[in-house]
Amino acid sequence: MEDCIFCKIVKGEIPCSKIYEDDKILAFLDINPVHKGHTLVIPKEHYEGIVDMPDDTLGELAKVAKKISKAVKKATDVDGFNIIQNNGVDAGQDVFHFHLHIIPRLKGDGLGRWPHQKFPEEEMKEIQEAIIKSIE
Amino acid sequence: MEDCIFCKIVKGEIPCSKIYEDDKILAFLDINPVHKGHTLVIPKEHYEGIVDMPDDTLGELAKVAKKISKAVKKATDVDGFNIIQNNGVDAGQDVFHFHLHIIPRLKGDGLGRWPHQKFPEEEMKEIQEAIIKSIE
Repeated sequence: MEDCIFCKIVKGEIPCSKIYEDDKILAFLDINPVHKGHTLVIPKEHYEGIVDMPDDTLGELAKVAKKISKAVKKATDVDGFNIIQNNGVDAGQDVFHFHLHIIPRLKGDGLGRWPHQKFPEEEMKEIQEAIIKSIE
Repeated sequence: MEDCIFCKIVKGEIPCSKIYEDDKILAFLDINPVHKGHTLVIPKEHYEGIVDMPDDTLGELAKVAKKISKAVKKATDVDGFNIIQNNGVDAGQDVFHFHLHIIPRLKGDGLGRWPHQKFPEEEMKEIQEAIIKSIE
């Protein structure tokens, strides 16, 4: 996609700190890391979010994410890390080319957790049925 | 695993608001949702984190996560959602059976973003090389 910064990285028009590359997948360091070693894994083809990804590319990307997670964990010597993938502006997606974050976490780094809610049983039942009905 | 709450859910010993099930994968509503429709996708076999997952199960789970994401998006009528999977205590993992969160997000829900850092080029280069060397 013409104006996509990640497509430009894939084409080599913009440099990146490359971690891994195969025919379908590219991984590189996030230039705005939460912690050192924060890595992005992307498909080389342009897809906006997870629902746009072809199954085979998504499966391949998941396996690469596992492989790179192991390497990030070893290289950064952390015990914990998050896999995060944001879909849509409201979810904090900033580049509209699918990217999966691998974020090493430091003990007691104080990064916030989101608050939870409780809904009445009836509302939980309603949303459960609505989701089940929406499965294609 | 004997004391694992998610293994008990898989075996039907603890109830859940089931969304989807096949031979390898189960999806159900999180009982402590960030927003209504917050769904967990888990492998039926017990694996602690992404690095422990066999490639084929991980690939299958990614495809199911995509399918359920579409359904959650449609049923909740949100524009954005996060895919989050936590590995280790330091990353906020609370149940030590792999689980992937699908979290619908509401416009302006005010849920925090983590701050970013900048590291000197030399440090970025060092961690890049360390991660590449650690890939198995």
